[in-house]
Amino acid sequence: MAGKGVFKDLLDGDVYKYYADGEWKRSSSGASVNILNPSTRKVQYKVQACTQEEVNKIMDSAKAAQKLWAKTPLWKRAEALHRAAAILKENKVPIAESLVKEVAKPQKDAITEVVRSGDLISYTAEEGIRILVEGKFLVSDSFPGNDRNKLCMSSKIPLGVILAIPPFNYPVNLAVSKIGPALIAGNALVLKPPTQGAVSCLHMVHCFHLAGFPKGLISAVTGKGSEIGDFLTMHPTVNCISFTGGDTGIAIARKASMIPLQMELGGKDACIVLEDADLDLAATNIVKGGYSYSGQRCTAVKVVLAFESIADMLVAKVNQKIAKLTIGPPEEDCDITPVVSESSANFIEGLVKDAREKGAKFHQEWKRDGNLIWPVLIDHVRPDMRIAWEEPFGPVLPVIRIKTVEEGIHHCNANNFGLQGCVFTKDINKAIMIADAMETGTVQINSAPARGPDHFPFQGLRDSGIGSQGITNSINMMTKTKSTVINLPGSSYQMG
Amino acid sequence: MAGKGVFKDLLDGDVYKYYADGEWKRSSSGASVNILNPSTRKVQYKVQACTQEEVNKIMDSAKAAQKLWAKTPLWKRAEALHRAAAILKENKVPIAESLVKEVAKPQKDAITEVVRSGDLISYTAEEGIRILVEGKFLVSDSFPGNDRNKLCMSSKIPLGVILAIPPFNYPVNLAVSKIGPALIAGNALVLKPPTQGAVSCLHMVHCFHLAGFPKGLISAVTGKGSEIGDFLTMHPTVNCISFTGGDTGIAIARKASMIPLQMELGGKDACIVLEDADLDLAATNIVKGGYSYSGQRCTAVKVVLAFESIADMLVAKVNQKIAKLTIGPPEEDCDITPVVSESSANFIEGLVKDAREKGAKFHQEWKRDGNLIWPVLIDHVRPDMRIAWEEPFGPVLPVIRIKTVEEGIHHCNANNFGLQGCVFTKDINKAIMIADAMETGTVQINSAPARGPDHFPFQGLRDSGIGSQGITNSINMMTKTKSTVINLPGSSYQMG
Amino acid sequence: MAGKGVFKDLLDGDVYKYYADGEWKRSSSGASVNILNPSTRKVQYKVQACTQEEVNKIMDSAKAAQKLWAKTPLWKRAEALHRAAAILKENKVPIAESLVKEVAKPQKDAITEVVRSGDLISYTAEEGIRILVEGKFLVSDSFPGNDRNKLCMSSKIPLGVILAIPPFNYPVNLAVSKIGPALIAGNALVLKPPTQGAVSCLHMVHCFHLAGFPKGLISAVTGKGSEIGDFLTMHPTVNCISFTGGDTGIAIARKASMIPLQMELGGKDACIVLEDADLDLAATNIVKGGYSYSGQRCTAVKVVLAFESIADMLVAKVNQKIAKLTIGPPEEDCDITPVVSESSANFIEGLVKDAREKGAKFHQEWKRDGNLIWPVLIDHVRPDMRIAWEEPFGPVLPVIRIKTVEEGIHHCNANNFGLQGCVFTKDINKAIMIADAMETGTVQINSAPARGPDHFPFQGLRDSGIGSQGITNSINMMTKTKSTVINLPGSSYQMG
Amino acid sequence: MAGKGVFKDLLDGDVYKYYADGEWKRSSSGASVNILNPSTRKVQYKVQACTQEEVNKIMDSAKAAQKLWAKTPLWKRAEALHRAAAILKENKVPIAESLVKEVAKPQKDAITEVVRSGDLISYTAEEGIRILVEGKFLVSDSFPGNDRNKLCMSSKIPLGVILAIPPFNYPVNLAVSKIGPALIAGNALVLKPPTQGAVSCLHMVHCFHLAGFPKGLISAVTGKGSEIGDFLTMHPTVNCISFTGGDTGIAIARKASMIPLQMELGGKDACIVLEDADLDLAATNIVKGGYSYSGQRCTAVKVVLAFESIADMLVAKVNQKIAKLTIGPPEEDCDITPVVSESSANFIEGLVKDAREKGAKFHQEWKRDGNLIWPVLIDHVRPDMRIAWEEPFGPVLPVIRIKTVEEGIHHCNANNFGLQGCVFTKDINKAIMIADAMETGTVQINSAPARGPDHFPFQGLRDSGIGSQGITNSINMMTKTKSTVINLPGSSYQMG
Repeated sequence: MAGKGVFKDLLDGDVYKYYADGEWKRSSSGASVNILNPSTRKVQYKVQACTQEEVNKIMDSAKAAQKLWAKTPLWKRAEALHRAAAILKENKVPIAESLVKEVAKPQKDAITEVVRSGDLISYTAEEGIRILVEGKFLVSDSFPGNDRNKLCMSSKIPLGVILAIPPFNYPVNLAVSKIGPALIAGNALVLKPPTQGAVSCLHMVHCFHLAGFPKGLISAVTGKGSEIGDFLTMHPTVNCISFTGGDTGIAIARKASMIPLQMELGGKDACIVLEDADLDLAATNIVKGGYSYSGQRCTAVKVVLAFESIADMLVAKVNQKIAKLTIGPPEEDCDITPVVSESSANFIEGLVKDAREKGAKFHQEWKRDGNLIWPVLIDHVRPDMRIAWEEPFGPVLPVIRIKTVEEGIHHCNANNFGLQGCVFTKDINKAIMIADAMETGTVQINSAPARGPDHFPFQGLRDSGIGSQGITNSINMMTKTKSTVINLPGSSYQMG
Repeated sequence: MAGKGVFKDLLDGDVYKYYADGEWKRSSSGASVNILNPSTRKVQYKVQACTQEEVNKIMDSAKAAQKLWAKTPLWKRAEALHRAAAILKENKVPIAESLVKEVAKPQKDAITEVVRSGDLISYTAEEGIRILVEGKFLVSDSFPGNDRNKLCMSSKIPLGVILAIPPFNYPVNLAVSKIGPALIAGNALVLKPPTQGAVSCLHMVHCFHLAGFPKGLISAVTGKGSEIGDFLTMHPTVNCISFTGGDTGIAIARKASMIPLQMELGGKDACIVLEDADLDLAATNIVKGGYSYSGQRCTAVKVVLAFESIADMLVAKVNQKIAKLTIGPPEEDCDITPVVSESSANFIEGLVKDAREKGAKFHQEWKRDGNLIWPVLIDHVRPDMRIAWEEPFGPVLPVIRIKTVEEGIHHCNANNFGLQGCVFTKDINKAIMIADAMETGTVQINSAPARGPDHFPFQGLRDSGIGSQGITNSINMMTKTKSTVINLPGSSYQMG
Repeated sequence: MAGKGVFKDLLDGDVYKYYADGEWKRSSSGASVNILNPSTRKVQYKVQACTQEEVNKIMDSAKAAQKLWAKTPLWKRAEALHRAAAILKENKVPIAESLVKEVAKPQKDAITEVVRSGDLISYTAEEGIRILVEGKFLVSDSFPGNDRNKLCMSSKIPLGVILAIPPFNYPVNLAVSKIGPALIAGNALVLKPPTQGAVSCLHMVHCFHLAGFPKGLISAVTGKGSEIGDFLTMHPTVNCISFTGGDTGIAIARKASMIPLQMELGGKDACIVLEDADLDLAATNIVKGGYSYSGQRCTAVKVVLAFESIADMLVAKVNQKIAKLTIGPPEEDCDITPVVSESSANFIEGLVKDAREKGAKFHQEWKRDGNLIWPVLIDHVRPDMRIAWEEPFGPVLPVIRIKTVEEGIHHCNANNFGLQGCVFTKDINKAIMIADAMETGTVQINSAPARGPDHFPFQGLRDSGIGSQGITNSINMMTKTKSTVINLPGSSYQMG
Repeated sequence: MAGKGVFKDLLDGDVYKYYADGEWKRSSSGASVNILNPSTRKVQYKVQACTQEEVNKIMDSAKAAQKLWAKTPLWKRAEALHRAAAILKENKVPIAESLVKEVAKPQKDAITEVVRSGDLISYTAEEGIRILVEGKFLVSDSFPGNDRNKLCMSSKIPLGVILAIPPFNYPVNLAVSKIGPALIAGNALVLKPPTQGAVSCLHMVHCFHLAGFPKGLISAVTGKGSEIGDFLTMHPTVNCISFTGGDTGIAIARKASMIPLQMELGGKDACIVLEDADLDLAATNIVKGGYSYSGQRCTAVKVVLAFESIADMLVAKVNQKIAKLTIGPPEEDCDITPVVSESSANFIEGLVKDAREKGAKFHQEWKRDGNLIWPVLIDHVRPDMRIAWEEPFGPVLPVIRIKTVEEGIHHCNANNFGLQGCVFTKDINKAIMIADAMETGTVQINSAPARGPDHFPFQGLRDSGIGSQGITNSINMMTKTKSTVINLPGSSYQMG
């Protein structure tokens, strides 16, 4: 169970400790932050409200630990990550439990998140070995006027201290997708978990602790955003920020100093359904893409753009599937569980009301109980409704009817978000040409948007982010180039 | 004009000289080889019948020249190739003229071949710079038990002397696709032109001469296969053979010593047409793919596998287009021109007769005048007919009717050739899955097989060849890896 | 001559116009900015003081032009760049003239800068073709639990509008090193030239104009920093900033929104000379590295760290070479020419006085005439002197005597700059291990720091910059990944 | 123990079975082949003398198994290899035992070989995942005249059935270095173990059996070379031969059909010692490089080229170390153990006698007892002695005294072998320039030649081999390119 067994050191009374210098610690602030259970809307967990001074100490430790870690052979770094991955998977049950309680993730999905996170760490370790072991060997005689008398050995070096800020919806998986790349590349890592999801993160971090990483190399600091938020993101010791979340990311980018940023922010992923599409396939993907985890996914389908001619049939098929979704608590593995917070539920309700007032057609009755929102398909949405453009992050999905491909593409590209999109058609030419025309980081042909498999590149355009993720890209992003040039007294070619 | 102007040094009376040591030379044999004009079936040109002794001298010069060339800066090598490319394009008219006379290539296509060859040389020069300037820089600490105390700089080195043997159908283009990669990579190149096409090759080689390459680096040796064929391919100085042609390639491979081989042999490229295909598109590609240059192309469509349900309609459309093909001499830019030799025409006639005797249906009357063969579509071909499996290299194309996708794939994969194939369908899933299932080097979706664009990889499976071509792959193929390892007295990591 | 012949359209009376929408224009401000000649300290040129409204128009044009440019075949983009390169080289004389007048660059070096810039553009065009034509094709079955049913095609797409801000010291070369990568990658480019160097930049831009690039794709806007500086760097249309210069870069990074930044700021490149070094080689490189273009180079040698035992001999050799430097106007090709501005000369003088007051030993008399500063070697410098840490950007070079390798490395790494460094030693082990230990973007073994050859990676650590430059890295930096995933209904492997 | 416990199924009476179709089998020949223990020169083991018919069946099974294996997800292939690696390491003791008995490998080295083989398999599995999961995605618009209307997805496909023939000296390690790459890449593998080493190979193969690979995918066939040697190498089902050994490889290359060959044959690795070298380091490496496993290593130091001025001192240091070598049976972990066979010992003795007769100076007494040969350093060797050029594969090492660097390089390059070489010098310039000048696959600076670490490229020039090995290169070598081109009806660029 969470906070028990191998995890018992994490707790100080009913407050979870933070992790610094290889130890679980109480904050000198004496204060804590409450984590509400989205289902009960009552306090489920408490975490330390760390101070700026504690952040400073963490940064100092991180910097020192990193210097030594960067001198650890790659195979040893990988070995340690493989150990952490194994320990994480062994402890999937208690960690999943906290995911259920903190972020109302359905039980099975919570288990899946932990297992997939273990796999991700191992894959990252092996990928990192390949990226870091091989640099470039360049010679000078390709540029006009040069002889072969300069030999340049260029390779990847760590950045230093990485600040990782994952979001509430995949607190474990989106944390390890930052931690793994950071560590294999020789960096230290400071984790600032989301409030909702913090306890799951701390359990996950303990698995790294148990795997025996050097003191200070990994830390996890909890607290109030007002106290340590900007302090962390603007901290001079931080050499890179990897953030997944919402608009906060844009604010962080504006304030951050001259350091590499990896940002994955929101999305408004469109699903374009053409007349020749396999409508059953489309409907299945729309429901899976739009309502899984109650729509609280960056890559959820967030607007359906359906051709008039097939829209009624598509909507009918979607509605049939929505009708089969189970609604209730995550502990019972329901499809639709409470959204993460009351403010989120209120925001969703606001979008829904706006659409209703402006004449959208509802196929299901609007129903809300606390944070639990019954799934809704909102049809005949028009561009003047907020839900045509904004991201609800809840189980409500707008359908816009289009007459031409161009109309669909235009709606997709006019949005400030540009994460993913998808198109359903059997036609190979249309599929490719529409995918080319959609200005999003990824376009899925005949499937819902998805972050994985984790070795695929993953990126957003416009306000959806900066940099590209996926295992390979994240490792590259957390390194920098260094080169050594051997200058010879004369030209030297390689044969005879 | 061929053999005139800047090309006048090539001729000794009415015999074309061979190229060695930076000079155009007469063979001491006093003998020559006749080149027949496929249209007139009369002697058009004569080339030197070189001796083994002359081959030996060429090899010695090549070896010596290569040593120095390998020490020439990359940018200078590229500059020389760019000069050759420009000179070649400037002289497209006389070179095309010899293509028309020697291999009966339609005038326009002959011009295109020369221009495309110039572009290919330039592209190769720049591509080669990138491939050769960048090696790998590897360190030791990724393999279990190793520290970072070994630094390995690995790069590409030339192989030495490359023997290039192009075929008659693209004597210029398929020669430069070997010469360009060989030279930019620092090799010497010995060209053995095909008999038919030799004079075009010699003109092309003269453009390299005019561009000022070092003496001996490029040579062109003509002669009788019986005298110098095996002597060349088994010559101990040859470090690599790049051959395009027919079954001879298999024999060469059997005899060759332990050297890299790049072989592009025959093909029996299938064109699978599904029920949902755009039949006009398919018909256009079948005619273009099957009858261009009278079918004398490795990547010609050589068997159509059409679904029963659409076969009649497809055949009708193809026949309409065949009816519009012009038949006659290459000088008049006819679509169908005489095939390269009488023996080739006889072979084609043999295949046709076999099919007719076994009951195939002919849509056009069989007509032959010397080497000129009127285009024929042979329908209702069955697996017991030779033309179902053999490569006519002429303007005759079999159609096999199939009932299932599996039947089409099976026919394609049962063939000993595996060069390319194509599939016509609008359906994205079928297109990809059939392409995956076809065991050929390349599968074209919704277009005829094609070697180009020249930077794409190009390769055959089974008896269609070994190695992969295309500009990048050819350059890589003509190099070898060399590595230098710096062993340090202790481990040394890169930061601090 | 500058502003004459093909360049005559650039002038409006005595004021140089700015370039927008494919035309040379006068600013509606009616105001101009003066450019002083460093030698005469009088106004040499005037440029338009553009308005924010004009910037807005430029951004609109850039955005529109980019949309079309991104749909131009790669080979056509490259062709246009090759044309621009050729035109630039043809006009090296008038452009060099303005470099002499604006930034007091010695005549020969000015010519070299223009020629090298042409070579850079051509190299970039060909490099860009290779980077952009080849993406990755990834399949899904490597990640645990996945079948091969997802095919991911990932490639590089342009970022949009790039803002390029080069510095005064290489206004042409460091502009084209941003323009070339931006354009070949499909971006639009807005150039903000440095005030000193603006006229050279405008001439260079005119070569792109003459090469026939689409209207609006390239623009050059001049003006007052106070009016359009932040306005440009914070402009919402800008998708990337490539900046070379000083501390301003750090301020830009703090203000910039969530866009990729490429920054190359200052350096304090150390030259470590060991006891076994070839002292003549070291001295030659110290003088070349420290005093070329009067020390006004990012990669100038900015501090010598010499072993006590050989310091006297090294200093003597350096002094002999300094004594041979010619001092005077750039028109006469003197080695030492006036530094760029009076404020720069004053800053240098301040550093020198500080060192003198704190007891450093001077080997040459301090002499200054206007902006012209006689070269000085400042010996026995200690860490408490400002010149031990700060970047003079003038012909004054400090020597610190060290007793151990560690002392040298420590001084190098303690500096906030981390651009390049160099080490002189014959010993292979020391050379490599010291290069590994120096925390700078590049370490040169047995040669002075250098940005080139331009295809080598070039980057700074800490306050010296973000991102990596060099042709390849710059092109990559000005692109973003986009991926298209084909989702198949079942797994499909490639053979049979 | 060998042939006991989990290995008991391998034995049929006192004859080891061969492995086919997932089972251990007796040959229908009823005959067996004796394996002599090099120490006792008595029969140690017996293996089946398989028939050509049995080879045919194995090939059929391999072909069938490969078809399915190529459709197994990459992560499952890797998982199976990881299992095999673990089982191999668990059984290091019995396998090492057979290495001691069959090839007289010192006990500790035998254990090391097995463990290193396990690591190699795991590393290969993970490396293979990366190589196979990522192909190239190419578009058409880089080549002049093309629009972006062709999308080429190119990836690596398996070759089919690989024939692996390892040598006696590292029968386990050099078998898995072929098996691992073959299997992860989707090929089937037929192993023909060396006679001496066959039983170790069979044990190793059993670890793959226990790991649960599909029936027929791996086979091991033993027998007489005269019966099945050429039959195997010329078998039409074989798609690739990976051979490590001696001159036989050249004969195989001559007979092989048009299939990729990976050959690592002999070496005559030179060790050049310059005047400034660290002589202790050189001596240590010469003894380790020359006498480890009694000199029976491809990459053994096989000739020392020492500068006159330091030759006496170097020889003295080497002799001191030779004097400390222990000589005796492998069971006692002696440094020098019996060479593999009587014929090998006789050959070595012949080289030694030739050198003695021609006046070479011996520093140790010549002593031989059966196959056991006492280590000898043969000084003042001249080019007219056979040992200057031939490969003894025993504990005898010639020293040639040189006066110039050129002399050393010339001797190295004049040899028909070109595997590795090494140079000892402290001087960075000499080190690099000599390494460039030595025409061998690898040059080690300041260390003895070595095959590992196994991820480094490993290759020989001239008669030392074809292709490049090392984990990455071997995987690439055992694949072929296949490409699929999507042809669009018009050009389609990726943004808007």
